[in-house]
Amino acid sequence: MGEPVLAESVRYADDGVVEILDRRVYPFEVSWVRCATSEDVAVAIERMVTQSTGPLFAATAGMVLGAREARGDGPREAAARLRAAGARLIATRPTNNHIRDAVHAVLSATVGSGEDPGDDEKRLTGDELVAAAEAAARAHEDAYHARNAALGGHAASLLDDGTRVLTHCWADAFLIATVRAAQAAGKRLEFVCTETRPYLQGARLTSAALVEMGYRPTLITDGMVAAVLSGGLADVALTGADRVTMDGHVVNKVGTLGVALAAHAFGVPFYALIDAPDPQAPTAADVVIEQRDGDEVLHALGRRTAAEGVTGYYPAFDVTPPHLVTGIVTERGIHRPDALE
Amino acid sequence: MGEPVLAESVRYADDGVVEILDRRVYPFEVSWVRCATSEDVAVAIERMVTQSTGPLFAATAGMVLGAREARGDGPREAAARLRAAGARLIATRPTNNHIRDAVHAVLSATVGSGEDPGDDEKRLTGDELVAAAEAAARAHEDAYHARNAALGGHAASLLDDGTRVLTHCWADAFLIATVRAAQAAGKRLEFVCTETRPYLQGARLTSAALVEMGYRPTLITDGMVAAVLSGGLADVALTGADRVTMDGHVVNKVGTLGVALAAHAFGVPFYALIDAPDPQAPTAADVVIEQRDGDEVLHALGRRTAAEGVTGYYPAFDVTPPHLVTGIVTERGIHRPDALE
Repeated sequence: MGEPVLAESVRYADDGVVEILDRRVYPFEVSWVRCATSEDVAVAIERMVTQSTGPLFAATAGMVLGAREARGDGPREAAARLRAAGARLIATRPTNNHIRDAVHAVLSATVGSGEDPGDDEKRLTGDELVAAAEAAARAHEDAYHARNAALGGHAASLLDDGTRVLTHCWADAFLIATVRAAQAAGKRLEFVCTETRPYLQGARLTSAALVEMGYRPTLITDGMVAAVLSGGLADVALTGADRVTMDGHVVNKVGTLGVALAAHAFGVPFYALIDAPDPQAPTAADVVIEQRDGDEVLHALGRRTAAEGVTGYYPAFDVTPPHLVTGIVTERGIHRPDALE
Repeated sequence: MGEPVLAESVRYADDGVVEILDRRVYPFEVSWVRCATSEDVAVAIERMVTQSTGPLFAATAGMVLGAREARGDGPREAAARLRAAGARLIATRPTNNHIRDAVHAVLSATVGSGEDPGDDEKRLTGDELVAAAEAAARAHEDAYHARNAALGGHAASLLDDGTRVLTHCWADAFLIATVRAAQAAGKRLEFVCTETRPYLQGARLTSAALVEMGYRPTLITDGMVAAVLSGGLADVALTGADRVTMDGHVVNKVGTLGVALAAHAFGVPFYALIDAPDPQAPTAADVVIEQRDGDEVLHALGRRTAAEGVTGYYPAFDVTPPHLVTGIVTERGIHRPDALE
């Protein structure tokens, strides 16, 4: 089984520079954006060089670079510099908890956030600071991988040998972990991927990763989901989730609701994959649906696809109600959407 | 109100040459393919220069050109030549009844099909033959327009002033007639169009025609239909139909089933527009779903959109069962899908 490029899309070059795979053009171009400083990493995240779970790894790498930049500082300067680097990374995409959590993990192992009474006790400097930052970054990444592996094991337990999986958009680490667990259990799988306009995550990212892992997925347009499910061409529908509310609403890439409606209509189970439901979101009304630039809908890969005079509309996510959801798969197991508490 | 270019996409130039709008590139290029002979028209239809209802008008024009080519022939030669031209046009796309009916209309008014006992009585030649062919072509087109106008009137009666219409793919003459009838009744309408991958008929043809008729449609990707309907952003879903079975199944461009599922789930009426149900198709099992080249799914406007190693799947149509259909609008009126007989 191959290792998908997207599974390790942030890496350290031999010269210590951080390289981030440019997901905006992958797989048509395999281009790595080189970041010599923590600030470079922040700019790359802002410019959407990486997305989905990529920013988590970019953030830990950015903090390692920040610690190296502080290597010659005294204790007070080093702490100020690393905290500032963290604040800058968090500010790139403020709604993404992955970045915030990664920054806090490295800060709490090195110089503290500056908000806790005990932070002044932390006086790491020089090589010790760098080593502690590197260890904390690696530990945070390892913990994330371990949680994902658990999630993947639970998801794979839902799939029989030979199962045909329909997926939408790019479920990233959740999907990779599921595939790995299924492969470890000797289960063959087949995949149908939606292309996921307008960004084509399914046609580009999911398809490329599955090909790299040894599959030959079938690609459909987003409008073909109901035809595929009514025709009995998939056994299960499986997507990631950007958020799951405590009462079982699944917030995910727009199009997921249509997948769930068709799955429900034609008796196909629909599962959503997520680390954990969000205690801050008791129900769907607590989740703001991001509206993106409608011009994206009028283009494909930068080329105009629409007649002049139209207005594009681009809600980035939709909300699938619990009665259309067979189960929520988290790192802790498989849960009914009405029993998440 | 503007006249959409697509409403008159076959025309006679001043020099008598037939010009057919190239729908493969419209509206990015407004390019007319010039056809000096009946054979040129047949080649243009084969090459998909025009589609949907375009071939009807191309076929009548092809027969007029055929009659002109036979102007100097004696009666037997003229009849043979015009019948051969008709057979050639019908053979371009044998499943399209529009072409067959248009050819037969011109033949029966001029030299007959050669299969009826009375055909030898028809001895039209020279200018008389040409004039009769032109008159028959015009009458056939006029009858088609009249039937469409009736259909449009019925469809418009379903729409209140201010109705927001969601449509999928390109309903062509049915949609134009509906809009004209609504405008004649003083009703304002708004439109949400799906882009309709992979050919982008919604982004290109429907959008362009609506803009030309004075609207400013909202464009969405095919995966956004459920989000739009669950969000209450459209009042009615309205599509054409390629075929309606006698028991009320709607066969239309793939994606229509997803529109109907979402409309049903969120209490939005769904209507399909078609001349008439097909007595040759008692139920959905009598309709063959055309499978097109899956490579189309891997490209947009000729550019590769998908990772290497995937296989595209392209069912051209899907089948919406009657329980998801609020009504079938034909030239005779609005019918419940379970009461078409």
